[in-house]
Amino acid sequence: MKKVLFATTALVFSAGIAAAEVSVGGDGRMGVVYNGDDWNFSSRIRVSFTASGTTDGGLEFGGSVRADQAIAATRGTSASVYISGAFGKLSMGDVVGAPEALFGDFYEVGYTDLSSAGGSNDIGYLTADNGGNVDCTSVTTGVSACANSGPNLLYTGTFGAFSVAASMSDGKVNGATIGGLGVPVAVGNGTVGVTDTSVTQEYAIAGAYTFGNYTVGMGYEYSNGRNQLSGTDMDVDMISLAGVGQFGNTSVKAVIAHRGQDADVDWYGIGASSVFGATTVGGYIQYAEDNNANTDVTWYGLGAEYDLGGGASIKGGIADSDVSGSDAVADLGVKFSF
Amino acid sequence: MKKVLFATTALVFSAGIAAAEVSVGGDGRMGVVYNGDDWNFSSRIRVSFTASGTTDGGLEFGGSVRADQAIAATRGTSASVYISGAFGKLSMGDVVGAPEALFGDFYEVGYTDLSSAGGSNDIGYLTADNGGNVDCTSVTTGVSACANSGPNLLYTGTFGAFSVAASMSDGKVNGATIGGLGVPVAVGNGTVGVTDTSVTQEYAIAGAYTFGNYTVGMGYEYSNGRNQLSGTDMDVDMISLAGVGQFGNTSVKAVIAHRGQDADVDWYGIGASSVFGATTVGGYIQYAEDNNANTDVTWYGLGAEYDLGGGASIKGGIADSDVSGSDAVADLGVKFSF
Amino acid sequence: MKKVLFATTALVFSAGIAAAEVSVGGDGRMGVVYNGDDWNFSSRIRVSFTASGTTDGGLEFGGSVRADQAIAATRGTSASVYISGAFGKLSMGDVVGAPEALFGDFYEVGYTDLSSAGGSNDIGYLTADNGGNVDCTSVTTGVSACANSGPNLLYTGTFGAFSVAASMSDGKVNGATIGGLGVPVAVGNGTVGVTDTSVTQEYAIAGAYTFGNYTVGMGYEYSNGRNQLSGTDMDVDMISLAGVGQFGNTSVKAVIAHRGQDADVDWYGIGASSVFGATTVGGYIQYAEDNNANTDVTWYGLGAEYDLGGGASIKGGIADSDVSGSDAVADLGVKFSF
Repeated sequence: MKKVLFATTALVFSAGIAAAEVSVGGDGRMGVVYNGDDWNFSSRIRVSFTASGTTDGGLEFGGSVRADQAIAATRGTSASVYISGAFGKLSMGDVVGAPEALFGDFYEVGYTDLSSAGGSNDIGYLTADNGGNVDCTSVTTGVSACANSGPNLLYTGTFGAFSVAASMSDGKVNGATIGGLGVPVAVGNGTVGVTDTSVTQEYAIAGAYTFGNYTVGMGYEYSNGRNQLSGTDMDVDMISLAGVGQFGNTSVKAVIAHRGQDADVDWYGIGASSVFGATTVGGYIQYAEDNNANTDVTWYGLGAEYDLGGGASIKGGIADSDVSGSDAVADLGVKFSF
Repeated sequence: MKKVLFATTALVFSAGIAAAEVSVGGDGRMGVVYNGDDWNFSSRIRVSFTASGTTDGGLEFGGSVRADQAIAATRGTSASVYISGAFGKLSMGDVVGAPEALFGDFYEVGYTDLSSAGGSNDIGYLTADNGGNVDCTSVTTGVSACANSGPNLLYTGTFGAFSVAASMSDGKVNGATIGGLGVPVAVGNGTVGVTDTSVTQEYAIAGAYTFGNYTVGMGYEYSNGRNQLSGTDMDVDMISLAGVGQFGNTSVKAVIAHRGQDADVDWYGIGASSVFGATTVGGYIQYAEDNNANTDVTWYGLGAEYDLGGGASIKGGIADSDVSGSDAVADLGVKFSF
Repeated sequence: MKKVLFATTALVFSAGIAAAEVSVGGDGRMGVVYNGDDWNFSSRIRVSFTASGTTDGGLEFGGSVRADQAIAATRGTSASVYISGAFGKLSMGDVVGAPEALFGDFYEVGYTDLSSAGGSNDIGYLTADNGGNVDCTSVTTGVSACANSGPNLLYTGTFGAFSVAASMSDGKVNGATIGGLGVPVAVGNGTVGVTDTSVTQEYAIAGAYTFGNYTVGMGYEYSNGRNQLSGTDMDVDMISLAGVGQFGNTSVKAVIAHRGQDADVDWYGIGASSVFGATTVGGYIQYAEDNNANTDVTWYGLGAEYDLGGGASIKGGIADSDVSGSDAVADLGVKFSF
């Protein structure tokens, strides 16, 4: 997460222009992954760009995009831009929903962020999660089929001990087929001249209160989407309660949530991470019960990492669930951040 | 358009190497767009790279490419490279045709460069426009079907009050299907071993004379292309007269053009923009008459922007045409340049 | 190859963070290519990112990726990461096989690295060549059909006059269709939850000994792959002897190789390049005989370049083979490196 900031200021100001700055960063990783059957190699390197500037009136603006997402980014997804000031921060693009903006997810397990058959360290927020798709499927099938339209709008603001967030989509998606041959396909509404079809409308609000080392918060999310597999429209809402506490070197996060309307799902999760010098250990356990389908699933992850300094660390983990037929997955590798 | 120039010179020269420099820039935008039916969100962030260097003999060279075009850029489209000196500048890649190089287009209306059913602020040059495709279709159908082969070659030079430009394609395109699943597909001739088929040959010349605040110019363009929808070959040429004048804070541009040979189209357009302190207003109106099809179309755009300083501005606009069944489009948003 | 190193150190250390650095570089080219029938334009610009850092314990790490390969790079191909120290260097991703890591290829002919019907300046190593695909086809058909799974692992180390290298794949590839619509499709094993199928296992070792201006070496490679065109599995191994010598301004490289087991191919090649001030001339000739198919092929390339300084050079070449029906190819253009 350590970004390299280029020493551009001197040169830019010598030209008398108060231009915005671009920083180049990224991350890399290499190691081995056990997928339930075999140990395989897995490596990755990603480059990201972060731009920021300030208007004459003191508003801040900027954006970010990863090099591997740059194609889709021209259509309004997989990247975001923002403008901020005393009023808070307004972001548009591939942003998270309001509750996720305030509460986040659990500790990432493993150097590849392992996900097991039941789920991952992601908390199952309803809106603007999963790379722009609304997750309005049964938590036990693992099929995510409700396409969000993107770009979405996210507002966050902090006023003393209170933090608030609000997010919404514009409720439109064009008729293009979603998904593709391993290449991110930009859904991109907002393309002038395209006849849009209502597929998904979503909005969410969330609030949090911080006292000392503790934060408690609540979020409400609503989504009206079409399940693209079944072709039926469905209304889903979700209320979530979250608490975060810092106890010495240990951080604990717990979330209780319920999905209602056309869904009836109860969801509980707790995660923690502890720092011992250069070593961090963390994990999570989550449980979800689909009362309509009469099914439930429990999944967990456990991992550790050792900071080598200079932006490098060794990280490994294991994740599993009680989904029948699924195996535990594990990994061990080196991570770099630039 | 303010590019961030990195302070690389000191480090590079301390190593005794006169290497070329790379600057990273880009632009971002966020706002709402009315597409004739709905207001939708629309956001985008783009990163661009500009390289430049100087040979020992004083020739300058370089190139530019946007991150979102980097894949196609390896095949010779969607990016360009150049070499320049006292003789002028020679560019190859995704370059504009000769008249567009000298006369440009009209003022961009709206933060998303709105285009209505009839057209946009683009002047309807024949060659090397529209992202590498030759626009050899009826202006009233809106279908652009003549594939240019790319890369193209563009020469520009300025000698005192005279500016000249010349451009040409190499007239070959391989047999690959043009277009694709929302992903830019490199047409890429010049791939050794591929049996090329003649599809499009184009060339253009243009000249301009500047006196005080006024510039007048003329361009001639020729294209021999295959309309890929009808499968027929067609010869089209175009002669254009352009005039640009600066009257105080107001800049006015007017273009008269005629397309002949297998086409018979008359084209008139006028655009203007005025700067009042931090505010700029601008617009255009264009008219085209297809004498073969006995159809005509008029379209216009009107917009304004307010410079917030630091590379950010608020910009909005409206565009419409008299094409029956088409609606006015509009937008309002924030633009950033890095 | 001259990379631009950004002056990031001062700013980064002023923040008290020893973060890794990212440098941005690239290359551009423009010119004309004769493909056996026509002279065509050909231009390209590529941007590359190189990251590097050092852990507190003195290990070095980093990686590199080209902007045009950034999409596939997220799946573990077309890019690489490494960690190195006194033990040597361990790289993962789109790495070359062990013999190629020590012996390299022949001099690149022409500004586009011309390849004729028989081959190119590439030496026909068995493993981890050709962009991640194992080349386990007959050298005379030109069809490369054995898919390697990627990412691969490469170890290189130098101990006094001895250099050693070892490389291997993890032998798994998922069931995804390989290839695509002109877009690099990530084969990407290591994706958790995907049922992998054994398609290719490969490993290689190589060693070299340097005395004065001479280096001699030997490599052994083994590949167990499925020919995806015929659907049959095949075992191929290859033993190669290489010698490199520097005689004044001239560098000469020669390779003798034999492919055995399910293949029976003899392979000879010699290449040389000489530097006269700013001018470099070079070329190669290679011969391969497929004893199973009773076919043979000879191909060669010859080129020259003139260094303009500042990272620019003029380069041209010609390549041909004795494959019946194939024509000589040639090019001439300008190359830039950033």
